[in-house]
Amino acid sequence: MKAFVYRGPGRSGVEDRPRPEIEGPGDAIVKMVKTTLCGTDLHILKGDVATCAPGRILGHEGIGTIAALGPAVSTFHEGDRVLISCISSCGTCGYCRRGMYSHCTTGGWILGNEIDGTQAEYVRIPHAETSLYPIPKGADEEAMVMLSDILPTGFECGVLNGKVAPGARLAIVGAGPIGLAALLTAQLYSPAEIIMIDLDDNRLAMARTFGATQTVNSTDGKAAAAVKALTGGLGVDTAIEAVGIGATFQLCQDIVSPGGVIANIGVHGEKVDLHLEKLWSQNITITTRLVDAVTTPMLLKTMQSGKIDPTRLITHHFTFDHILDAYETFANAARTKALKVIITA
Amino acid sequence: MKAFVYRGPGRSGVEDRPRPEIEGPGDAIVKMVKTTLCGTDLHILKGDVATCAPGRILGHEGIGTIAALGPAVSTFHEGDRVLISCISSCGTCGYCRRGMYSHCTTGGWILGNEIDGTQAEYVRIPHAETSLYPIPKGADEEAMVMLSDILPTGFECGVLNGKVAPGARLAIVGAGPIGLAALLTAQLYSPAEIIMIDLDDNRLAMARTFGATQTVNSTDGKAAAAVKALTGGLGVDTAIEAVGIGATFQLCQDIVSPGGVIANIGVHGEKVDLHLEKLWSQNITITTRLVDAVTTPMLLKTMQSGKIDPTRLITHHFTFDHILDAYETFANAARTKALKVIITA
Amino acid sequence: MKAFVYRGPGRSGVEDRPRPEIEGPGDAIVKMVKTTLCGTDLHILKGDVATCAPGRILGHEGIGTIAALGPAVSTFHEGDRVLISCISSCGTCGYCRRGMYSHCTTGGWILGNEIDGTQAEYVRIPHAETSLYPIPKGADEEAMVMLSDILPTGFECGVLNGKVAPGARLAIVGAGPIGLAALLTAQLYSPAEIIMIDLDDNRLAMARTFGATQTVNSTDGKAAAAVKALTGGLGVDTAIEAVGIGATFQLCQDIVSPGGVIANIGVHGEKVDLHLEKLWSQNITITTRLVDAVTTPMLLKTMQSGKIDPTRLITHHFTFDHILDAYETFANAARTKALKVIITA
Amino acid sequence: MKAFVYRGPGRSGVEDRPRPEIEGPGDAIVKMVKTTLCGTDLHILKGDVATCAPGRILGHEGIGTIAALGPAVSTFHEGDRVLISCISSCGTCGYCRRGMYSHCTTGGWILGNEIDGTQAEYVRIPHAETSLYPIPKGADEEAMVMLSDILPTGFECGVLNGKVAPGARLAIVGAGPIGLAALLTAQLYSPAEIIMIDLDDNRLAMARTFGATQTVNSTDGKAAAAVKALTGGLGVDTAIEAVGIGATFQLCQDIVSPGGVIANIGVHGEKVDLHLEKLWSQNITITTRLVDAVTTPMLLKTMQSGKIDPTRLITHHFTFDHILDAYETFANAARTKALKVIITA
Repeated sequence: MKAFVYRGPGRSGVEDRPRPEIEGPGDAIVKMVKTTLCGTDLHILKGDVATCAPGRILGHEGIGTIAALGPAVSTFHEGDRVLISCISSCGTCGYCRRGMYSHCTTGGWILGNEIDGTQAEYVRIPHAETSLYPIPKGADEEAMVMLSDILPTGFECGVLNGKVAPGARLAIVGAGPIGLAALLTAQLYSPAEIIMIDLDDNRLAMARTFGATQTVNSTDGKAAAAVKALTGGLGVDTAIEAVGIGATFQLCQDIVSPGGVIANIGVHGEKVDLHLEKLWSQNITITTRLVDAVTTPMLLKTMQSGKIDPTRLITHHFTFDHILDAYETFANAARTKALKVIITA
Repeated sequence: MKAFVYRGPGRSGVEDRPRPEIEGPGDAIVKMVKTTLCGTDLHILKGDVATCAPGRILGHEGIGTIAALGPAVSTFHEGDRVLISCISSCGTCGYCRRGMYSHCTTGGWILGNEIDGTQAEYVRIPHAETSLYPIPKGADEEAMVMLSDILPTGFECGVLNGKVAPGARLAIVGAGPIGLAALLTAQLYSPAEIIMIDLDDNRLAMARTFGATQTVNSTDGKAAAAVKALTGGLGVDTAIEAVGIGATFQLCQDIVSPGGVIANIGVHGEKVDLHLEKLWSQNITITTRLVDAVTTPMLLKTMQSGKIDPTRLITHHFTFDHILDAYETFANAARTKALKVIITA
Repeated sequence: MKAFVYRGPGRSGVEDRPRPEIEGPGDAIVKMVKTTLCGTDLHILKGDVATCAPGRILGHEGIGTIAALGPAVSTFHEGDRVLISCISSCGTCGYCRRGMYSHCTTGGWILGNEIDGTQAEYVRIPHAETSLYPIPKGADEEAMVMLSDILPTGFECGVLNGKVAPGARLAIVGAGPIGLAALLTAQLYSPAEIIMIDLDDNRLAMARTFGATQTVNSTDGKAAAAVKALTGGLGVDTAIEAVGIGATFQLCQDIVSPGGVIANIGVHGEKVDLHLEKLWSQNITITTRLVDAVTTPMLLKTMQSGKIDPTRLITHHFTFDHILDAYETFANAARTKALKVIITA
Repeated sequence: MKAFVYRGPGRSGVEDRPRPEIEGPGDAIVKMVKTTLCGTDLHILKGDVATCAPGRILGHEGIGTIAALGPAVSTFHEGDRVLISCISSCGTCGYCRRGMYSHCTTGGWILGNEIDGTQAEYVRIPHAETSLYPIPKGADEEAMVMLSDILPTGFECGVLNGKVAPGARLAIVGAGPIGLAALLTAQLYSPAEIIMIDLDDNRLAMARTFGATQTVNSTDGKAAAAVKALTGGLGVDTAIEAVGIGATFQLCQDIVSPGGVIANIGVHGEKVDLHLEKLWSQNITITTRLVDAVTTPMLLKTMQSGKIDPTRLITHHFTFDHILDAYETFANAARTKALKVIITA
């Protein structure tokens, strides 16, 4: 089968690979229908993700059809249309029982990282019963692809960890796909104000159409003052960090109000400064989280009821034959204005 | 009246001062019976606390008798024996209604800081109805002094913020008075393991008598490895930082397990390193808090029922005439083995 | 001044009364601008509320202007435009500190019940600092009247107690003003389905315009089966009881799913059957609550940001001269289709 | 093999039965080492449990050794010593993912009820990975038997649902094994007062040795007044119902204070009166729950750390040959003073 393979920094492409087979009793083989690209895939291509060895088929998102099942899988059947979670979860270990699937002792984020992923014609999904979800009849399948990773990530790491609540003041630092996913799902809790902060006016304009009540372009280095001005000097109840560098984490510290929360989503490559000499007495909470994808069923219900429309994140479409173009488009988002791209088999 | 007054770095002592008078309708004048010293008082004496101007009477803890009341105070009467909260709270502002008394817009930690404090014969207490507590008949009054600040601080900033739970693994970094107060109150939630970490073997020995299940002397710089060894390689569910420097905050980052909490109590003078390049995916929570003293009534009940014995924190007694000796003893804790000192009028 | 006075069952009307005066240091005298009627007022008129003695001026809702202040009130000034909470709260007692203002030991629901109320030219408000709220410049004052009681009641007793969550299935039994207030505020949490149940098709039609996703007319006694059919046999996560009789509480028991919540808002006059022989193993929660009006500031923010529009509850307007007509209209809601009526001074 | 079989009301006894075999890929066959009897077993023997058909081997508690495993079970091995949960849980269905194992769509309380149970030489355990727990080296195996059902039941349905907290006032109605299990585990949260209520002075005396701070014999029908007297007229924060009849549920309603919780554990055979005409305004919560046994790992840790000693519940020992004597002793607890009996293979 065709598969997009990481071969080491700067040397990746499509290869012919053998079709995966059932290895364990809980496995499923899924014939891919639609997949997408994630910022993490770009990190892998640069060689930034140590757990991903050359030779790996990338991809941890998508939907497909069940082609084969291990003998212990009873809740799915061949031919079922399924959503693939970016997090594989055994449902059995201590972490899974606490709902912390991201740290499953035999799962977590392994797809397209420690085992072969979804940017291929077929993919093997371990722990299928707790790592796949049935697609309801009539569901928008491209919207479903957004439930593999990006929506749960924005929602769990940003909105839930950030304790976004009705009437609250929220700032989201970073209006890329993840920040916009946080913006979309934050509105499930009806905050009074959502201030979106980014360097790119195009993304800020898009954020307004997604529901941001205010936007701040932080190019001038005065974003903290701007947020204070927008909030009567108080700062925000929740600051969501959706970039992953020191400067944006610093901005969150500057704008969070006493009693507030900084919810980190960004994937950081370096340590950051934490100003405990100011924050020790400010009764704040800082959270980190690798998405658990534990809210996927709930997000599916809100999507089905029309409360959120994840397709707004989709800007481009490609067939799998053109996956290199898809990567090119996605990697140059400032120019192409790409958010999420759909890749159809 | 006699009062202990901060006159600037290194120049403090007992002075004669006019007795305070009722200034606002919600004020009380309390004749002090017993007070104590806090590590924060030592910081003030060195000039480290910018909000405390020379000329200030120090002290934010203690018990006394109501000598006079403003016209709006109806729940207390002259002669009542009362506990003074270290935090003054109006009960009215948005922060107070959220239970965040520490950030009361007309209160917070002002006693012995922004207004004159309790190390004197009399003290004026603003917002008396929500900043004083009646002392139950028969209560141990020296134990009550521990409810002004140190027990709520250990409990709220460490134990509650740290989400200490039955069966959990807890580490407390710092076995000074605050760390020991956290240790005492943590046991209200029955953690399975409490690992106490300090540089001082005497304090660690004392921690064992207070209920620590394990102790680690961190002098060799290998405390993280020791904690990992004690926890089967897993680390702890909660790490309480009770020192206030970068090295101890670092240790907390090294020993917290995925899904765990770092609860900061320490008063930090400088920024610290936060290793988001490791922690971003570890689903951890970091909290800071200036004590709200909102749990004082609850801690009083646990004390009255014999669940905790705060008098274990009291190592020395002085009369107010010897408050300079008290400071001398308290400031040299390594030598004197002082934890909390009681100063009686 | 003119005031609407309860004189005993069936004998009430407008009287001339002396203007109230400041009695305690925390009092405010408010010149009424707008008030409204509550179902509870109708209960009082029938003699059903034992705490309300003949001679009482009714009314516990409204907005006005501060005409006089006791000496202990510092956060308001004469002439301030204020919202009156239906719940008087001292901010000081144990219940108030827990946020349970409804059980304030010197407050609670006393206005228009144990002390004279708001259906008059002036009203005395005890504990003014914690029982009044400033009206923001430019706020819709008729919308504000809905924040005195009905919106917090629907939200706190129904939505918050009912743990309404994104994606959830919710049923509200009773589409009167309280049920509709629950419906409006439930949407702050984005439930996937809101099934409204009532005997009156007119109210159900109105409920659809307020955001109900499904409606069930329960006249045929088959509402439980209808709800089961609408929920794939599962029942609802939350059932809000907004009527106050045995039959509607029974319906809630019949439709709540395992793990769900029954949130009672209704004022019950008699005991009800609780089917523990079925429910003991169903992991359900039943809650009761007299509104605490603790969420008023938060609801104000959601209103100001346009997330909810409480004016949709207002169906009729009267001047105070015509308050008897207002009562007549409100008491015959089936005919007049009245929800909330605004009475302007 | 020998097994204790329910043959219909009043007609049960030991039979020879074929040894169970692996039926599904997730099954385990466990050779029983120790089991016990539950009040529910007595209900079955009387014919009160409709789901349990004649011919059923009873028993849902115990420890044993793994004799055989289905191919999908990877976390256990033959010969492992295991604890059997009274609740079988697939770990996969929506209820299991919410931690509500009691309502697992292919599990729940099925052992010794809908499928053959543990009062036999061997038992088949479906969903073995999520329904068995490894027994740590050196653990007290008789204590472990108390973790199958009775401790989690008292803890989850009583203590957790009842929100028992440090400093709280707690009453437990019913000092049988379940009430005493609630008493033991409640102390993990350090309530200030635990009032135990029963008709039997012997059990009340035992409750005192288990940690009750007060006891009330309710034979005179004046228990509510006695509890009020013990609590300064306030009633209790939490009332745990551990009997299962109308009178004891009524007592809980009479003694719960505003803002409090009634946590029902009792298995009720009939509906009860709920006095909403009094309670509608009292801000109380009533909970029901079939044990989920989701806290078993946590209780095991508290047991291993010496915080609770479940062996205090064990009053009698029998070998399996004498299981009829065990039933006789257990069924006549008033005379024999039996709490839990251990039956060893």
